[in-house]
Amino acid sequence: MERVPILKIGGVLLVSIQIDLQDQSVLALQEDLAEKISTTGAHGVVIDISAVEIVDSFIGRMFATIASISRLFDADTVVVGMRPAVAITLVELGLTLGGVRTALNLERGMKILEQVRRDA
Amino acid sequence: MERVPILKIGGVLLVSIQIDLQDQSVLALQEDLAEKISTTGAHGVVIDISAVEIVDSFIGRMFATIASISRLFDADTVVVGMRPAVAITLVELGLTLGGVRTALNLERGMKILEQVRRDA
Repeated sequence: MERVPILKIGGVLLVSIQIDLQDQSVLALQEDLAEKISTTGAHGVVIDISAVEIVDSFIGRMFATIASISRLFDADTVVVGMRPAVAITLVELGLTLGGVRTALNLERGMKILEQVRRDA
Repeated sequence: MERVPILKIGGVLLVSIQIDLQDQSVLALQEDLAEKISTTGAHGVVIDISAVEIVDSFIGRMFATIASISRLFDADTVVVGMRPAVAITLVELGLTLGGVRTALNLERGMKILEQVRRDA
């Protein structure tokens, strides 16, 4: 099974999703992420989906679950890099990302995380 | 064909390799990267290979080519996140990464790029 690598930039963990996520790899990612947030004390998680062509309710639920897990460690989650076609499909199908914040790209996502942290 | 996404963090471009690279995807990555360096004016490129299980001479040549392309745009290249097993195999087989600089992880790689830039 392929594992999604988790990179650390300052106090933020970056997850760039490039593989087709199956049940097993999603579970592994959630475990790895919980482990990594707890060991690094990261205050934010950025999930980059610029390589993802299809976002369905399964992926949406994964974002929501990751955000809930992060929240338990007092970390915020931002989804970045959504393709225009993906955004259109989400709206057309009436799908939501479980209340997870989104941003245009990695840099804006990191800025939002900084801001949330300062305001807290 | 899957494309490897290129993320921007400040003046650095981040490429996280998670797919098995074939000739076509390597060519596409090199083109995308040249395009992105030229449009963003990035001063550094970090290639994360923490998800890569096998580094052979084909991948090594790709690193060298990417570094040469980056150099033409006055940008430096660092390869980060190599797995211990990959490092051992490289040494045992006498393979080199074409003179490309390596660092333990993303943060150290970014530090090296900052340093190189300051010293220049």
